[in-house]
Amino acid sequence: MYSPTIQKLIDLFSKFPTVGPRTAARFVFYLMQKSKEEIEELINSISNLKKNVKICPLCFNSFEGEGEFCQICSHPSRDKSLLCIVANEIDLQALEKTKKYQGFYFILGGTVSRLRKADIEKLRIKELQERIKNQPKIKEIILAFNSTPEGEATTLYLERLLRPLNKKITRLGRGLPVGGELEYADEETLASALEGRK
Amino acid sequence: MYSPTIQKLIDLFSKFPTVGPRTAARFVFYLMQKSKEEIEELINSISNLKKNVKICPLCFNSFEGEGEFCQICSHPSRDKSLLCIVANEIDLQALEKTKKYQGFYFILGGTVSRLRKADIEKLRIKELQERIKNQPKIKEIILAFNSTPEGEATTLYLERLLRPLNKKITRLGRGLPVGGELEYADEETLASALEGRK
Amino acid sequence: MYSPTIQKLIDLFSKFPTVGPRTAARFVFYLMQKSKEEIEELINSISNLKKNVKICPLCFNSFEGEGEFCQICSHPSRDKSLLCIVANEIDLQALEKTKKYQGFYFILGGTVSRLRKADIEKLRIKELQERIKNQPKIKEIILAFNSTPEGEATTLYLERLLRPLNKKITRLGRGLPVGGELEYADEETLASALEGRK
Amino acid sequence: MYSPTIQKLIDLFSKFPTVGPRTAARFVFYLMQKSKEEIEELINSISNLKKNVKICPLCFNSFEGEGEFCQICSHPSRDKSLLCIVANEIDLQALEKTKKYQGFYFILGGTVSRLRKADIEKLRIKELQERIKNQPKIKEIILAFNSTPEGEATTLYLERLLRPLNKKITRLGRGLPVGGELEYADEETLASALEGRK
Repeated sequence: MYSPTIQKLIDLFSKFPTVGPRTAARFVFYLMQKSKEEIEELINSISNLKKNVKICPLCFNSFEGEGEFCQICSHPSRDKSLLCIVANEIDLQALEKTKKYQGFYFILGGTVSRLRKADIEKLRIKELQERIKNQPKIKEIILAFNSTPEGEATTLYLERLLRPLNKKITRLGRGLPVGGELEYADEETLASALEGRK
Repeated sequence: MYSPTIQKLIDLFSKFPTVGPRTAARFVFYLMQKSKEEIEELINSISNLKKNVKICPLCFNSFEGEGEFCQICSHPSRDKSLLCIVANEIDLQALEKTKKYQGFYFILGGTVSRLRKADIEKLRIKELQERIKNQPKIKEIILAFNSTPEGEATTLYLERLLRPLNKKITRLGRGLPVGGELEYADEETLASALEGRK
Repeated sequence: MYSPTIQKLIDLFSKFPTVGPRTAARFVFYLMQKSKEEIEELINSISNLKKNVKICPLCFNSFEGEGEFCQICSHPSRDKSLLCIVANEIDLQALEKTKKYQGFYFILGGTVSRLRKADIEKLRIKELQERIKNQPKIKEIILAFNSTPEGEATTLYLERLLRPLNKKITRLGRGLPVGGELEYADEETLASALEGRK
Repeated sequence: MYSPTIQKLIDLFSKFPTVGPRTAARFVFYLMQKSKEEIEELINSISNLKKNVKICPLCFNSFEGEGEFCQICSHPSRDKSLLCIVANEIDLQALEKTKKYQGFYFILGGTVSRLRKADIEKLRIKELQERIKNQPKIKEIILAFNSTPEGEATTLYLERLLRPLNKKITRLGRGLPVGGELEYADEETLASALEGRK
């Protein structure tokens, strides 16, 4: 019912994460009210993504500017004994925001729900093994994945894969989150909170 | 913490309706995984909006293609005695989907929460008056606004404004929506449902 | 893990509508903090339900006090030409709150999801037929059921059942509820709102 | 609008935790459909609460049966070196369900949102001090409160109060709960998860 150009853009926006056709239509009508300059600003920003943003060959984080490596990997004073493996860049940013971690990262590129070969091949397993081999100062590898079935399966897979390296392998602590209530916590979370008391 | 190009695009997406910075970040990382061709398709679709889409001078609906007026306004067999005033194009499309309305539309360009002059001046009041004057066959004007305080205020304002024209002025019927339950309906809705029984 | 008396009461409260075991436990601990007098007040109120409350033989509404019929059925000035059939007493009270209806009621005792004999036999069908036969002044029968599949099925069933009586049979009007928005309304609700415009 | 006995019971149920007048009405109509025997079962269960259930003078947990103390306090093989302070019995039961804790409990009777004298006096502070004095084998006191502002304030208050006793004082570990995602975790939870990694 929408005209072809509008419908085409609704279809493209509908593929964005969390966006359905109704929200996509609102996006399009929002854009139709914007000035020519604002539309150009958006278009330039989108096309700059491919032009300006590089992927760090060490951790697979995105970065811009001169230099071969990202700001974290090229930082002179971060702790070379720590490597934290995360699923994606958003999780990396979440950990950076805590300002409690001074080691390095490796972005695995996803998680697996089952340990099927086809799924695992989508992850950066070879690149991870290469990375660990080339950074012999690593003492501890932190598996920082969601506490979901996918995160658990990925953690389990990496624990098995990395065990022969004889590095310390850790995972994020479980417990009550900020705002969490005992009455509504599941038994596993409460058990972890009890064990991790301090 | 994100690099400038990424942050810039996060900021732009954050202004989209219903989008916060977290969702905007997910949009950006979604786009970073797309191929060059897919990015170009999106950019072209956005820039085509301004190029291809025209605004109908009669109803202010968007349309494409040859011709001066939109598909609805240039349709030979729609009912010239009916004019339905809606807030925006999304509401027009919602009414069109019912396939129960064969008259014409006028997009007011918004609603007002209070009847302040500054708010009312943002609406297409003069264009509406012009439109009604130029289409003497109109017998009924339907005020099709949300049943919210803004929609009510706008309906009230238009009722007063259009009363001197001596046309029939109606508003959408109220009642139980599909799926509605008596137990949870407010008294006004139930009273309308009782009065509108048939 | 709770002691038997507590667990027994949790089990009983868990059968209350909308109550799960967690909420039931909160009810029990709430009661444990109450004084002896408060507990007795609750117990008396519950046992008074069976003692004091009578069921009106005309409409099956509950009532108290002297007299054979409920306040509505024994009211001298209500409109004897209108009979409104509702599923239960809560729906009757919702309609009474609107103060827009001055006729009589009949509580059917439920709704049916399918027109199976076993389900229909749980409803007060014979009592309804008796009631209509005994009140020849009835001109209009209002089927006031939820706009849900169960409400629709029951309405349909009653329409067929009562059609031979040659009374006017109506149902509650559909349309946008108070607060409803065109953008989020389903097509059937919008179509009803268009048809029921006034 | 409801008859007095019904309204009275609606009012009493409306005071139950999480229950509003609408749900309370549903409770009453639920009870009206129950048989005399079922109503008596409910009434007996409620009145048995006061008759059968005793409060343990050591931990303030509820219990039934012979004996002076509750099942946990009178258990021969629980670990006398551990005392876990909880807000209420529901939290105690939540911890028991994990089957990971073999020490003793003390139910404080609530939490405080601010450290005002009037609020603190509602808690069993004296009883707690008495309890700790009388059980010299206690080595560790676990403050097991919700990770909410109230739980934090209470934890803080007890830490200060109990510090002079020279016992080990711990609190539940914080971290990602089961099902938790890094992207949606707040910074404090993630920081705790990083620090508590293992």
